[in-house]
Amino acid sequence: MNHPYTFDPLPQPAVGPGEFAFAAVGLDHGHIFGMTEGLIGAGATVTMVYDADPEKAAAFAERYPTARVASSEQEVLDDPDVRLVATAAIPSERAPIGLRAIEAGKDAFADKAPMTTLEQLKAVREATARTGRKYAVYYGERIHNESAILAGQLIERGAIGRVVQVVCFGPHRIGGGRPDWFYDPAQYGGILCDIGSHNFEQMLYFTGAADGRVSTATVANYAHPETPGLQDFGDAHVVLDNGATGYVRVDWFTPDGLDVFGDGRTLLLGTDGYIELRKYTDIGTDNGGGQVFLVNQEGQYRFNANGMTGFPYFTRLVRDCIDRTETAMTQDHALKAAELSLRAQGDAVVLAP
Amino acid sequence: MNHPYTFDPLPQPAVGPGEFAFAAVGLDHGHIFGMTEGLIGAGATVTMVYDADPEKAAAFAERYPTARVASSEQEVLDDPDVRLVATAAIPSERAPIGLRAIEAGKDAFADKAPMTTLEQLKAVREATARTGRKYAVYYGERIHNESAILAGQLIERGAIGRVVQVVCFGPHRIGGGRPDWFYDPAQYGGILCDIGSHNFEQMLYFTGAADGRVSTATVANYAHPETPGLQDFGDAHVVLDNGATGYVRVDWFTPDGLDVFGDGRTLLLGTDGYIELRKYTDIGTDNGGGQVFLVNQEGQYRFNANGMTGFPYFTRLVRDCIDRTETAMTQDHALKAAELSLRAQGDAVVLAP
Repeated sequence: MNHPYTFDPLPQPAVGPGEFAFAAVGLDHGHIFGMTEGLIGAGATVTMVYDADPEKAAAFAERYPTARVASSEQEVLDDPDVRLVATAAIPSERAPIGLRAIEAGKDAFADKAPMTTLEQLKAVREATARTGRKYAVYYGERIHNESAILAGQLIERGAIGRVVQVVCFGPHRIGGGRPDWFYDPAQYGGILCDIGSHNFEQMLYFTGAADGRVSTATVANYAHPETPGLQDFGDAHVVLDNGATGYVRVDWFTPDGLDVFGDGRTLLLGTDGYIELRKYTDIGTDNGGGQVFLVNQEGQYRFNANGMTGFPYFTRLVRDCIDRTETAMTQDHALKAAELSLRAQGDAVVLAP
Repeated sequence: MNHPYTFDPLPQPAVGPGEFAFAAVGLDHGHIFGMTEGLIGAGATVTMVYDADPEKAAAFAERYPTARVASSEQEVLDDPDVRLVATAAIPSERAPIGLRAIEAGKDAFADKAPMTTLEQLKAVREATARTGRKYAVYYGERIHNESAILAGQLIERGAIGRVVQVVCFGPHRIGGGRPDWFYDPAQYGGILCDIGSHNFEQMLYFTGAADGRVSTATVANYAHPETPGLQDFGDAHVVLDNGATGYVRVDWFTPDGLDVFGDGRTLLLGTDGYIELRKYTDIGTDNGGGQVFLVNQEGQYRFNANGMTGFPYFTRLVRDCIDRTETAMTQDHALKAAELSLRAQGDAVVLAP
């Protein structure tokens, strides 16, 4: 069906070659590649990499030949050319790395979950406020997902009126070969903190809320007794400060019959319509991921978002680091999403075993 | 994709012509037609109808010529041939009608919501326990919906392992021309009591739980200031007694662009797969309603449930009335679903205005 919308132009690089250097420190999660590629797409150059595991660092440098392997984190922090330090270390180590980068006068860019305790959150808030440095967060399920970006543009254009609810489903495949930290809540932070954090960010973003309170949360290990530290299920309900609501369910139950890691969905209810994102697959069809379904007062529309939006977050983040602005995502927003995930995790009722 | 399942045979009539007579009393909601047709499909005969509005009763009798118009409810209750009294009166009047039928020695069959207060619930529990008569409830979004019935059969066959969560979305179109009671919470019971009750029943049924507690609930009137008694949004989270969870959102925001009254969905998460019901439409496709999507360890399947299951509830209900059994739905289950909806409604935080 023809649609009446004109969307934003694709983002252009923020800088020319060599104008903005960043480093990668802590490569435990594969998200570091998404973060790196997003920044490179915005014109940034990765000039240095460090990981306690030299093989990981070497593999990274092989993939991104502009990066040389540093002998220590300190060597990265001492390099005056490095403006931004990206980290996808074990979740409990991300805030310490980011804080050291901030104290060295750099901006930090942490994979989600950006922290695992309220103490870390407090320290990050203090340091960013005191120094003016950034602790940016890679909430990839929105900022690195064209269906989510297109949904944001549709909402900006009034396609569904006022957004009164955001519901997110974040199923993931557990698979095999995961490192030990993956099963240790003290290191990964719990399921609502870890994979849930994406969804608290989406609740705030899509409803335009600045804050919220967690009204209920649960976690469980229903079916993985061999890894008791795993939470294979979590959910939470949030009442936002503008009267909208959010609900999230995350789990590690993606079955073998699915062709992707998880059937991630976001459902946006507005007063004049609704949007459903089928982010990674559209079950029962050959459509693939990136599908945006819009139903509003005018009709029904399906958009294949792939290639439609690009990833403006990264361009804006690089400009923000240079211009000392907050166009990509405000610090308050990034940390409020983390706070909600930490509070949900902390308050969660354990249902099983 | 070929599937490995053999489903239940289609239900056959429970009785021969004229063997089981029922009456319709209170025709305020159009669900009375679904209830009547379900019973007729099971072999029952509607012999009498009463409504305070003679035109409504006459129209019913014209549609079902086996029914003659009674001059009063008492005339129905005094007819020894009438075994069951079906009612879709204003929700707040259903329990009083059902209780009078029970005291007259008949079984009752109430549209959902079957009651609007905890006092009515207590009275129904007392009367059914004392007399052995039934207060059956028409939770049509499951028992009169082939996609939901097929999902039940898939779960019985172990298609998704243990069901750990049920999520329901029950959007509805507000439309125009609704009667006054539709906007009076004292009469319709509130959105979670009214259209929400379907979903509490599904939580209990699909997880096999006997009880639950409402962990949070909200209601709102976000966008209908001209009808302040309307709740255009409600949601609730339930922790079930077997450690599973349920979440429901109901609303009156179906936009004009949708071709059906609402994009009702049920999402069933199991330890070995998941099922999604697209009950009334499958947006962005020509599939129509009645779609059952199954993803499990073996693969992905889409079933068009239309014509696959029939409606065994009605056959069983008629047999239960004759045999004094509980094969269609236990009394405890029907009333527990109502109790959860009443408790959610009573506890709900009002978000707007």
